[in-house]
Amino acid sequence: MSANRNETPNWLKQRAFLTPNRLAIRYEGKNYSFLDLHQLVEKRARQLHQIDIKRGDTVGLLMKNSLEMVINIHALMYLGAVNVLLNTRLTAEELLWQINDANIKCVICDDELSVHFPGKKVMTLSELKLCDEKEAALDDSFILDDVATIMYTSGTTGKPKGVQQTFGNHWWSAIGSVLNLGLKDGDCWLLAVPLFHISGLSILMRSVIYGIGIVLHSSFSAKEANRAIKNEGVTIASVVTAMLNDMLQELGSDTYPKSFRCMLLGGGPAPRPILEQCREKEIPVFQTYGMTETCSQIATLAPEFCFSKLGSAGKPLFPAQIRIVADGRDCSPNEEGEIVVKGPNVTPGYLHRPDATNEAIRDGWFYTGDLGYLDEEGFLYVLDRRSDLIVSGGENIYPAEVEAVILSHPSVKDVGVVGKENKKWGKVPHAFVVRSEEVSEEELRQFCLKKLAKYKVPKGFTFVESLPRNASKKLLRRKLKEWL
Amino acid sequence: MSANRNETPNWLKQRAFLTPNRLAIRYEGKNYSFLDLHQLVEKRARQLHQIDIKRGDTVGLLMKNSLEMVINIHALMYLGAVNVLLNTRLTAEELLWQINDANIKCVICDDELSVHFPGKKVMTLSELKLCDEKEAALDDSFILDDVATIMYTSGTTGKPKGVQQTFGNHWWSAIGSVLNLGLKDGDCWLLAVPLFHISGLSILMRSVIYGIGIVLHSSFSAKEANRAIKNEGVTIASVVTAMLNDMLQELGSDTYPKSFRCMLLGGGPAPRPILEQCREKEIPVFQTYGMTETCSQIATLAPEFCFSKLGSAGKPLFPAQIRIVADGRDCSPNEEGEIVVKGPNVTPGYLHRPDATNEAIRDGWFYTGDLGYLDEEGFLYVLDRRSDLIVSGGENIYPAEVEAVILSHPSVKDVGVVGKENKKWGKVPHAFVVRSEEVSEEELRQFCLKKLAKYKVPKGFTFVESLPRNASKKLLRRKLKEWL
Repeated sequence: MSANRNETPNWLKQRAFLTPNRLAIRYEGKNYSFLDLHQLVEKRARQLHQIDIKRGDTVGLLMKNSLEMVINIHALMYLGAVNVLLNTRLTAEELLWQINDANIKCVICDDELSVHFPGKKVMTLSELKLCDEKEAALDDSFILDDVATIMYTSGTTGKPKGVQQTFGNHWWSAIGSVLNLGLKDGDCWLLAVPLFHISGLSILMRSVIYGIGIVLHSSFSAKEANRAIKNEGVTIASVVTAMLNDMLQELGSDTYPKSFRCMLLGGGPAPRPILEQCREKEIPVFQTYGMTETCSQIATLAPEFCFSKLGSAGKPLFPAQIRIVADGRDCSPNEEGEIVVKGPNVTPGYLHRPDATNEAIRDGWFYTGDLGYLDEEGFLYVLDRRSDLIVSGGENIYPAEVEAVILSHPSVKDVGVVGKENKKWGKVPHAFVVRSEEVSEEELRQFCLKKLAKYKVPKGFTFVESLPRNASKKLLRRKLKEWL
Repeated sequence: MSANRNETPNWLKQRAFLTPNRLAIRYEGKNYSFLDLHQLVEKRARQLHQIDIKRGDTVGLLMKNSLEMVINIHALMYLGAVNVLLNTRLTAEELLWQINDANIKCVICDDELSVHFPGKKVMTLSELKLCDEKEAALDDSFILDDVATIMYTSGTTGKPKGVQQTFGNHWWSAIGSVLNLGLKDGDCWLLAVPLFHISGLSILMRSVIYGIGIVLHSSFSAKEANRAIKNEGVTIASVVTAMLNDMLQELGSDTYPKSFRCMLLGGGPAPRPILEQCREKEIPVFQTYGMTETCSQIATLAPEFCFSKLGSAGKPLFPAQIRIVADGRDCSPNEEGEIVVKGPNVTPGYLHRPDATNEAIRDGWFYTGDLGYLDEEGFLYVLDRRSDLIVSGGENIYPAEVEAVILSHPSVKDVGVVGKENKKWGKVPHAFVVRSEEVSEEELRQFCLKKLAKYKVPKGFTFVESLPRNASKKLLRRKLKEWL
């Protein structure tokens, strides 16, 4: 009977049966029910089968958010093929590396993203849509241990690694989230983050598992996001701080409807001024910690703790556990160490990388490489990604801490801090600052000296127009280091 | 990594960590948080360990609903021991049979239920509470494939069978339910059905998995149930038709608060007059189909369909599937056959009964022995328990159908129909009727003739004071047959 437990009905198909008329997706002003979507997906699956996509094949998707991308993701699942979600911002060379690494059989791409990959089949969306249909056996159920999707993460060093995400990882991630955030009649999730990142894909998976609608945006626009919340019934939105900041500015003196119940904030803790603005406007902010390897959130901070536990990412989701480990032992409360997590949402490992997998996953625990601590009550504080740690004269400096201070200056709009080589100290912190109004380097330095130990204050400030962020708006520190 | 997927944190312990201050149980006017309950359970687990209860032991609980019973159930789970939930209405002889069948090491019982079972250790609650504590290794996590609880079902014929319910069965049952019913801040579930039945135990499991409170009643009282809904924040209640009927009568012209969002009705479809009363009072009735072997509901009818799909038990829960099978093939829509179900909430089988297990579970599908059909849209209609089928002159008569008609007569309060031996026809239906006001046999016969094919109309009516129902208020047809 354990076979039963390792199986669920095909999610979208089950939704098309159980709740056929509910909204599945709103895209470019049109509504698609679960039944509509299922029918579009069945057709697409047969078209994909016509170009010889079948069970076990690995297919790359090089697409921007669109209804068509959603259809392709589901259709590949119906066929039992594995989705490799390719980041549309990569260079052709970077993409080719991933395509070869994942042994991709075919790349499906938006017409304008079409690239020639030597020795690989590439099909544009326009071509695919013209394909005939070929009868195919479509999956009525999913095996939870099967790999559903693969996403590459650059990791700390070396070549990107393909993170394998099973149907079970997506399932448990969605279940862990629902046990924390609840589920209400009429819930609707704004999807304005990339589907090729886990932040976006996880919303799509929740939609079919919960039977709730999504409002899909092809790219993020603060104005459109606010309109979706104010006028289109969105009750939950996934954002990062930079998006939330833009949305608050665009919102001006306006507010969101009472039915908007969750602003799910990823990509690091929010600075206090933003939380204060949200409190004024009664926007409930849930700060989260998660990564590609945990298939989205693994910890979340409930809004009632956002000031009393400022900077925390909260407690683990119900099916998950978190430990802090240093020198092979569990840390005491408030003692820093590596964040180590466990749960059925955690990847079984990296594609073709047994060494990296065994390094990251030991005794069922995933070693994130991130630094943090748990307070006495078990709230998680993420200090920094290990690779970003600035070691200066034997002291540890966490860029996020320095950035939070600089960002709290009223004239600063955005900031990124990285370590700069220094003969005397090894490394010293250096800040790249985007200003909202005039402010001098000396003013900022004095401001920092008031709030930070001297060794943590950046030795240099560079004023820039904008910071390098990836499609999820996460700061790309590697780029900043190149700028140095 | 599949080990991860087969494991969850210990549910109550995780709740005591994640949401320590939320209400876990309200009992006899006192509130207990998840942390309170966890601490009581830890103490009890150590007391149980003192009397030599340890991992893998099988322990009988012979108790009526109480906080102490809840504590014992959790404490046995913390120790890795298996709970056998004994029905307090059984005779000592019937109990002894189950105790021997399950190879029970010790029976914990309410003081007033204490019985001597030859060769078996029996401990009253009073004795247990006086035990010293002995340090014990308490489980931080549960293995989903492990058996958590055993409940005996009488089945259609022969000796009762022990239904094994794994942690995974309880988990998936709770998850299937939450994906259907949703989960809101402040949800609170009325538990006024027996904890020794799956209807009651499943509420307890949901409470710790969802992190919601329960209001626990030692036995059902319509007045107390209504008070809990009106004044104590109950938002969901589990009932059977007889309970709901009493509650409606007790409620009189009063109504429930808007926050009361779900009346979960098991034990067979509700008659139209009751549904109409509920509609008037805006009580959302969710009719369900389930059994001990499916660890509670496996299908549920949403309130919006309660009239358009009158008599239906709805569609399967998200992780489950339902088929109708006759002569080894799948039936067409509206064609009657045996109800066959699949899902991770389905028992791995009967204790020590490989034959019965292999008979009931084939290719991962559980053959319920119940008769029913699916309509064109996939809504399930349960016609009857197979054992209750009345075959009369080659025609099939389903008692539930006849009962629903008689119950719709304004002078009838309760009714049970069984087959009576008849030389000519094999069997004929016979009705036992509880009247709310004067009505003659002839009047009822004429009433039925208007609504039923002649062969379905009972050949005899017996007026009685009350009907035999079990602790879950389910009609005991076997008893009625004895009355004939």
